[in-house]
Amino acid sequence: MTRPEPTPDARTGPSTRGPADLVITGCTALVHDEREEVGFVENATIVVRGGRIETVTAGPVIGGTVDLTATGLAAAEHIDARGQVALPGLVNCHTHSPMVTLRGIAEDLPIEEWFNEFVWPIESNLQERDIELGARLACAEMIRGGVTCFADHYFSMDTVAAVTTESGLRANLGQAFFSSQGAEGRERSLDFALRHRDTADGRITTSLAPHAPYTVDVADLAATARLAREHGLLVHIHAAENRDQTEASLARHGRTPIEILAGAGLLDTDLLIAHGTGIVERDLPVLARASGRVGVASAPRGYLKFAWPTTTPVRALRELGIPVGLATDGAASNNSLDVWESMALTALAQKFTEADPRRLTSRQALHHATLQSARAVGLGERIGSLAPGRRADIILVDLTGPHTQPVHDLAATLVHSARAGDVRTTIVDGRILMRDRELLTLDVPAVVREMNARMPALIDRSHGKRIQDYDT
Amino acid sequence: MTRPEPTPDARTGPSTRGPADLVITGCTALVHDEREEVGFVENATIVVRGGRIETVTAGPVIGGTVDLTATGLAAAEHIDARGQVALPGLVNCHTHSPMVTLRGIAEDLPIEEWFNEFVWPIESNLQERDIELGARLACAEMIRGGVTCFADHYFSMDTVAAVTTESGLRANLGQAFFSSQGAEGRERSLDFALRHRDTADGRITTSLAPHAPYTVDVADLAATARLAREHGLLVHIHAAENRDQTEASLARHGRTPIEILAGAGLLDTDLLIAHGTGIVERDLPVLARASGRVGVASAPRGYLKFAWPTTTPVRALRELGIPVGLATDGAASNNSLDVWESMALTALAQKFTEADPRRLTSRQALHHATLQSARAVGLGERIGSLAPGRRADIILVDLTGPHTQPVHDLAATLVHSARAGDVRTTIVDGRILMRDRELLTLDVPAVVREMNARMPALIDRSHGKRIQDYDT
Repeated sequence: MTRPEPTPDARTGPSTRGPADLVITGCTALVHDEREEVGFVENATIVVRGGRIETVTAGPVIGGTVDLTATGLAAAEHIDARGQVALPGLVNCHTHSPMVTLRGIAEDLPIEEWFNEFVWPIESNLQERDIELGARLACAEMIRGGVTCFADHYFSMDTVAAVTTESGLRANLGQAFFSSQGAEGRERSLDFALRHRDTADGRITTSLAPHAPYTVDVADLAATARLAREHGLLVHIHAAENRDQTEASLARHGRTPIEILAGAGLLDTDLLIAHGTGIVERDLPVLARASGRVGVASAPRGYLKFAWPTTTPVRALRELGIPVGLATDGAASNNSLDVWESMALTALAQKFTEADPRRLTSRQALHHATLQSARAVGLGERIGSLAPGRRADIILVDLTGPHTQPVHDLAATLVHSARAGDVRTTIVDGRILMRDRELLTLDVPAVVREMNARMPALIDRSHGKRIQDYDT
Repeated sequence: MTRPEPTPDARTGPSTRGPADLVITGCTALVHDEREEVGFVENATIVVRGGRIETVTAGPVIGGTVDLTATGLAAAEHIDARGQVALPGLVNCHTHSPMVTLRGIAEDLPIEEWFNEFVWPIESNLQERDIELGARLACAEMIRGGVTCFADHYFSMDTVAAVTTESGLRANLGQAFFSSQGAEGRERSLDFALRHRDTADGRITTSLAPHAPYTVDVADLAATARLAREHGLLVHIHAAENRDQTEASLARHGRTPIEILAGAGLLDTDLLIAHGTGIVERDLPVLARASGRVGVASAPRGYLKFAWPTTTPVRALRELGIPVGLATDGAASNNSLDVWESMALTALAQKFTEADPRRLTSRQALHHATLQSARAVGLGERIGSLAPGRRADIILVDLTGPHTQPVHDLAATLVHSARAGDVRTTIVDGRILMRDRELLTLDVPAVVREMNARMPALIDRSHGKRIQDYDT
């Protein structure tokens, strides 16, 4: 994750040679200024070559016309995006994509019952084919919702990597492990990370994925930190998911989950912490001392649904300079992989939690959705901004619907009025994965048919097994 | 609002005469059992005649075929709704529809600044044409989001009534007034209510609409209660919107806003209270003694956005038997008229507020969205359920998208995975207002063009006027 991108010339040849691969005209483009403030370029033209953004220029490059030949621009592919807004693709910073298969299986329950009575017993039935179908459905849902990159933390990740490749999405993938698996779990996680890093034309990056401080012991966490530093890998872990976990950790070990991560050396690696709603005051100086690039993924819908008393402490983390990316968690708890909703709910939950209607502003929410999310998953140099040299992960959002008109404040329209379903076109590395709502790389009806046929065997809990026990 | 519906025969002639007006086949239909529990009928056939639901029957009435003639059913209009769920149309129990014009005009502010610096100054510029265009855009948004009925509380309601008629929607409309307008405000509200009640083929009902206890004095509230009883009208009012209002009322009058309503006799009329997040413990016995049919409209998104410390106390109100309907408030605060989102947020906010993940369940949320919402707006006998004799206000929701598959728990899929944009078809009184996402009664581009042309004059605040001061 830490290696610099090859320069455009090294990877794609001279950018001025021949026609562009893709030109998008007539859109309003979300950009960041030198202070990273979110702004908008009207009547923008975006030129893509070799999978990267070559230029984002303000109109009237081509005036009112959509005839590229009249403008001196030539492109293999042209999208006339008038009435649409171009944004960096959304990043789902923490999910378990194959869990879409269990969407709605365990509803309106506390997390203990959700894990122990439903999710972990059912997961003991999972076959590779279930993972494959689930990942495919998840990728379809994410592409339809404007997600161009996801950080996945699950089992059978070879299969998820294959589906990611096929889908055209970008992902950071980690093979989850528990200490209950012995050393083998950690070794498999490393083996996966090394085999798959920078595959799929560079779209797949990888991480080491210990499950959580309450399921992975300190020795394994410390070994993970050493491996991460040795191999330059991100570590992706659940930690301080909720206040109960923090209190249980203090009662059992005298240390918070964040202090345990610090003690294991994980804050001196590049680290993606999922949730962190149990991060408490005493954790802040610990996080401030981190020498690694630490990010947090926030999935606020699930915190409300589980009735947790707190949400991710975004303000405190931002004051430490820690990026907070947007996430959905798995669909078995969140009911969707709708990062757009996570963006709106993050803004709303932060206002409510901090008792301050002035923040997050919509522009702050869009900063979380773009650069902070990219940084949280270790891709801060490659994606997260519509800027020359970045990978061409772009979504086009239609604002002509009655629910997004009129537009007095485009940032507010995007965050609070637009919905995932307003994304019309999703592009990754310059390749169009959805055009005008039509998925081009995945066949949803075929996936759903086979998934439903396999469902009775998958959801059978009569065996009484579970892959793990939830006991903070 | 309290008069019984004419029987089908009196209104539409014998139901067995001639072909049906509309038959919907192959859907899954949301129904209520005798205990009002939400359930689903698979492969349902819904027959509509004379604007009413005549029958809802389980398949296989027509088996796999969609050839109505082969089944003995004949209809002027047939919708093959396989893969879709039929629900009672959503009810927006409290909105200010023309305020869509101001969507996004005043963002990330406390309510005082929102009112005093933006909304009330700009509203002093409103012309009839602005109201008309706003109402038209609002109706378009609501039809697209599966709303078939709305309770509107605003100014220039003659214009809103005309647009409602044209749109095909159902509505309860009230002309808002303040005591600062003198007796004339109240008289105009009554005049409006009497002229428009039961117009638009019965789709328009009306209410008296005093603004709030902090802008309408006790004498006017008491006069309103007398008029409501005399004319059999609903009263629609903002009250106990937030805790600050309740505390200010106690400090100023020694009584809560709910106690003021009670003292004015408004709890002995049919009453729709908007918001009620400032309803406190001592209000509960007062509400319990109400002899009128009292309902509350909850619009949870705005409470989070304004960073209010509480949401509508749904559990306490339900224990008193008070229906809590779903609402969006105006789009200037809520950013949308998306009642589907209000349904999901009500479920989530209640779990969080009560620190109990077990409620609201999705079925409870659907009960709020259907029968409770119908009752809150005084239409509990006419709409809110897909049952024989009810008006045919029906929406068809497409669940074939990747974000709504697979379906383990249909209620959860509807509440937590589906979105307003999944509504494909919206029907009011048996008339199709949107078919396959296409609006049939309103021209959105024309509305938006004219609205944008008028915008500079509308949003000018240089005059320094405002229609009212916000000071709880």
